[in-house]
Amino acid sequence: MMQAPHIGTMNAGARGTIADVAGVTVGHCTLNQGPIQTGVTVIRPHPGDAYREKVPAGACVINGFGKSIGLVQVEELGVLETPLALTNTFGVGTVANAQIRAAIKANPQIGRDDPSVNPLVFECNDGYLNDMQALAIDEAHYLSALDACSEAFERGAVGAGRGMSCFGLKGGIGSASRVAHVGEQHYTMGALVLANFGRLPQLIVAGDALGRTLQAESTIQPEHGSIIMLIATDAPLDARQLRRVATRAAAGLARTGSVYGHGSGDIALAFTTAYRVPHDAALIAIPPLVSDTRLDPLFQAAADCVEQAILDALFSAETVAGRDGHRRISLNEALRTRT
Amino acid sequence: MMQAPHIGTMNAGARGTIADVAGVTVGHCTLNQGPIQTGVTVIRPHPGDAYREKVPAGACVINGFGKSIGLVQVEELGVLETPLALTNTFGVGTVANAQIRAAIKANPQIGRDDPSVNPLVFECNDGYLNDMQALAIDEAHYLSALDACSEAFERGAVGAGRGMSCFGLKGGIGSASRVAHVGEQHYTMGALVLANFGRLPQLIVAGDALGRTLQAESTIQPEHGSIIMLIATDAPLDARQLRRVATRAAAGLARTGSVYGHGSGDIALAFTTAYRVPHDAALIAIPPLVSDTRLDPLFQAAADCVEQAILDALFSAETVAGRDGHRRISLNEALRTRT
Amino acid sequence: MMQAPHIGTMNAGARGTIADVAGVTVGHCTLNQGPIQTGVTVIRPHPGDAYREKVPAGACVINGFGKSIGLVQVEELGVLETPLALTNTFGVGTVANAQIRAAIKANPQIGRDDPSVNPLVFECNDGYLNDMQALAIDEAHYLSALDACSEAFERGAVGAGRGMSCFGLKGGIGSASRVAHVGEQHYTMGALVLANFGRLPQLIVAGDALGRTLQAESTIQPEHGSIIMLIATDAPLDARQLRRVATRAAAGLARTGSVYGHGSGDIALAFTTAYRVPHDAALIAIPPLVSDTRLDPLFQAAADCVEQAILDALFSAETVAGRDGHRRISLNEALRTRT
Amino acid sequence: MMQAPHIGTMNAGARGTIADVAGVTVGHCTLNQGPIQTGVTVIRPHPGDAYREKVPAGACVINGFGKSIGLVQVEELGVLETPLALTNTFGVGTVANAQIRAAIKANPQIGRDDPSVNPLVFECNDGYLNDMQALAIDEAHYLSALDACSEAFERGAVGAGRGMSCFGLKGGIGSASRVAHVGEQHYTMGALVLANFGRLPQLIVAGDALGRTLQAESTIQPEHGSIIMLIATDAPLDARQLRRVATRAAAGLARTGSVYGHGSGDIALAFTTAYRVPHDAALIAIPPLVSDTRLDPLFQAAADCVEQAILDALFSAETVAGRDGHRRISLNEALRTRT
Repeated sequence: MMQAPHIGTMNAGARGTIADVAGVTVGHCTLNQGPIQTGVTVIRPHPGDAYREKVPAGACVINGFGKSIGLVQVEELGVLETPLALTNTFGVGTVANAQIRAAIKANPQIGRDDPSVNPLVFECNDGYLNDMQALAIDEAHYLSALDACSEAFERGAVGAGRGMSCFGLKGGIGSASRVAHVGEQHYTMGALVLANFGRLPQLIVAGDALGRTLQAESTIQPEHGSIIMLIATDAPLDARQLRRVATRAAAGLARTGSVYGHGSGDIALAFTTAYRVPHDAALIAIPPLVSDTRLDPLFQAAADCVEQAILDALFSAETVAGRDGHRRISLNEALRTRT
Repeated sequence: MMQAPHIGTMNAGARGTIADVAGVTVGHCTLNQGPIQTGVTVIRPHPGDAYREKVPAGACVINGFGKSIGLVQVEELGVLETPLALTNTFGVGTVANAQIRAAIKANPQIGRDDPSVNPLVFECNDGYLNDMQALAIDEAHYLSALDACSEAFERGAVGAGRGMSCFGLKGGIGSASRVAHVGEQHYTMGALVLANFGRLPQLIVAGDALGRTLQAESTIQPEHGSIIMLIATDAPLDARQLRRVATRAAAGLARTGSVYGHGSGDIALAFTTAYRVPHDAALIAIPPLVSDTRLDPLFQAAADCVEQAILDALFSAETVAGRDGHRRISLNEALRTRT
Repeated sequence: MMQAPHIGTMNAGARGTIADVAGVTVGHCTLNQGPIQTGVTVIRPHPGDAYREKVPAGACVINGFGKSIGLVQVEELGVLETPLALTNTFGVGTVANAQIRAAIKANPQIGRDDPSVNPLVFECNDGYLNDMQALAIDEAHYLSALDACSEAFERGAVGAGRGMSCFGLKGGIGSASRVAHVGEQHYTMGALVLANFGRLPQLIVAGDALGRTLQAESTIQPEHGSIIMLIATDAPLDARQLRRVATRAAAGLARTGSVYGHGSGDIALAFTTAYRVPHDAALIAIPPLVSDTRLDPLFQAAADCVEQAILDALFSAETVAGRDGHRRISLNEALRTRT
Repeated sequence: MMQAPHIGTMNAGARGTIADVAGVTVGHCTLNQGPIQTGVTVIRPHPGDAYREKVPAGACVINGFGKSIGLVQVEELGVLETPLALTNTFGVGTVANAQIRAAIKANPQIGRDDPSVNPLVFECNDGYLNDMQALAIDEAHYLSALDACSEAFERGAVGAGRGMSCFGLKGGIGSASRVAHVGEQHYTMGALVLANFGRLPQLIVAGDALGRTLQAESTIQPEHGSIIMLIATDAPLDARQLRRVATRAAAGLARTGSVYGHGSGDIALAFTTAYRVPHDAALIAIPPLVSDTRLDPLFQAAADCVEQAILDALFSAETVAGRDGHRRISLNEALRTRT
């Protein structure tokens, strides 16, 4: 099996995934039952209660053809208060319900003395492989993915990535990390993507316009894709700065060949583990923050690890067959079988 | 029962509700069962299929402490493609699922040849009266409200408004309309609000700081409110202009005493019935649009009918008792019983 | 002379102006020469070098019919690095040049080792009274206003307010302050407005629709107005929170009768004096910040002191005659002369 | 001299510049006097009066470290009403003044019966080569560039591009075009960039990480760059859609190696020549617009012609010497002299 080339000149962390950012864990629940090829992926920003110990976050909607829930409040308040969930387009409502019930279970005052909790669910459309009309995701799948969260996690056609397509090939979950030097400090940054975008002729791998040379097995479908790009870092940044970091995901995405297609919900979100915003505090203690004037290495890391994570999704995914005889071959298979 | 004073100098339409905009209808499903005091309200922008015949729309998030779903795509594409739904904070996911299933039923290609549909659900937090932790809303309630859509509809403690509070009094659904003269043309504008915001001392009624003079029955709770302000018009405007109209809801809201409290999701959306965006067309025919230089009467109408609709909610609502002995008295009762 | 009524229930600071926020000073340069009725007003956020010691800030464009310079960078970086300048629409370029030259003089590395400085100039259109086509503002006027900065400053038809109109009456500079209690803490907030918006029938003074009862001397002109609303506070907030504070200016503005007219550039900006962002630091020390959950008193203060500052402009301004026989009478004169 | 490789699979128009969009012309005024290495470039969207016949436009601020003037109003109203001007950072105010005076000369009611005109000036920082502290740009330079507007225009180290640097090499003005097939229709799209961003190791030329292999003559300076990307098209689009097109500039920019550095004001604006918005009309006639569902070829064209235009700037520019012995060698020279 071929490996994804290393992108850029910065080093990866030890695992080469978002879990290189200490405390971040990822879990999947994968549904693989004939025409049901879908799932849920959960990213926990830290091992504690996400509602009681919120983490600063900023988002960037690069192209808003998307049905995520929760971004309005993230933009206003600059914090996450649930784990981040990924699923298919028609699973958002159910996963949001599951997040609400899980939050109430841990914090019974929610919806009573405490007003509410902000579910945060991102989606891509896996309808080419998955029978999305079945609305197969139920709340237990979210809990299963949450329970599975670990520093070691699979990538490729797993979890929310099970039914996703990317450049007409098999897409899914990818992850990568980089270590950025900011003055004397080293900060770790990691990305996890749900990659489900692009048409094959657009594909660029580390600068090589590979897509034009590959013959895909099936007729290219019009793009109904999307990509969700989640970025974690241990650098001390505030929500405004994290929005700036999230915006750099657009650069990494573009270098794989995307022009942010009309029908693609291209959304990035960055969060930091450097400090937390307690639910009940009257004053919020903030550590010294990296000056904006020193952010360039973190911007480079964001672009590079998003590009690397997309390639990781493509190189990790296996060929998957789904509904109605639809099939997406893996990039590895496409490379092996080209004449 | 006291009547709400008329706001401003423009005339209302025949019904004095959002249904004065031809084609717009409203339906409720109300749950009134002991501690369950909640519901769903649906606004249909026209009698046809909202997915096949989309309507131009623009939104303004005044304060983003809110859990609505669907706004990301409205902002990007400038159209609605489902009826607008209102419910409580924890009902959003379920109502979104109901919208998805209803859209698939009418358009079986959704999720297959057509990628997806964008559910659009707004919410306020009715947890003071309603046992929101019960997640009592189910998909049938959305369908029931949809079926009930009519030009004649109740206001006050009905539908999504059943459990809402406003200025420490009983809030809920309110509506109003205005006829705006733009040059030789007359255009109709209507507002429907889900009013669930404010503390009693803030209440201003037509310039009168009434709230300071009223003694509420129960202890004032910290505000966990929100307000959703939906505006319809038959004036030919595009999505950018409709966003401008939606922004003027902030003026009408402020004149009732709101300062857009931290915990209040204050969101406005305006749509036009003047033309539609067909789902399948390659070119979109646009009628001559009102010049931005002539929009002031429509801006005045937007502010006035939002203020009027909020007062309508307060004056229409009856006293409601809900969970755990909680009770919200109506403005009329508060006015009758003050010494 | 009549006094403006006190708005709301919070107390003003000792001076009742933006200078109640310690360190904030204001200076004017007024041009009153026949048809030239214009000027420059400068607000210094602190006595030091604004470039070397930047202050956190956030802005809200309520209606973007405006020609200000500098907001793009404020939104990105969340800091001010020059004093804030106000002038007429056609004076922006010249005042920006003056800010650049003043910054270079104090920091000769700007434009060389340091890349640049971000001028920040706001404007309203005083063309009814002032011969704006003369482009009468020159760079010395900015320097003169800067030199005049003091805790004690005039309001009304002075500085940038010299030629401004408001509700068809004489507008100009107004200021106000409030002391907000946030838990055990007291924070001061002050507003300074350049008020140049509205048509007379819209005017509301403390809830009283006074405008409908006044007969203005001259024919009402179509509104070509604008309002700039600057808010200072000593509360420790970050740029995201300051944007939230700035948004509440829209509530105070609406309560005076504005619906944010099409041709009105309605822009608010809030900054804090609680800490500074040093130009050269690698890490930025941040004091404990007020939790978003405790911001409501500061939101109320922002709305109230903006409303109060607008009334202050109206009650402070004297009648002014300008170009071509144009004349704006003061609110006091209008009140005296009504039958 | 080496040629820039052709980017992507779409064809260029006849000239291969923004002037392939019928009616669009470009003019330069170049200052080349020892330490003064700067200038002004003007793009006229059509041969008529830009104020009386406005063109629809939308902008995207990718990174807001920039001092442009005019974007606030473009975002609100979705039209241009002056020619587009490019210059150095400290020339913005003066060029804005020149635009105001030119507009008044053509339309003497501006500032009187008509309220104002919105100058639109973009900038990059040419302070490495140019003695920017001299503020050498005067109003006549704008008029000279305006008068020079023509379908045939130079690229490289001319006009506003005279003193610009790009990837540590000589940057400046570049342009490119593409013909996009949207169903049966052909639309032309053109880009003009003012390229002044990037550090040499980042440079990617058509997928080749060329920058890492080049040894620049001078020590790499920290990036204080920026890029302005202007896109013209004859496709009938509205302001919202044009903002979507402008956003795709970020993809083309990223493919040259940029990660939108902190200190880089990366701003894109797209306008259409397909119809105009008359200054005085009460109703605005709109031609049938391209459906959003068909925009992908235009998005691809936008990304490709921005990337191509950046390469055009690099390949067109000659080596320039400026202030204090500073010198930027051209890409061609760097390629020739590498070992």
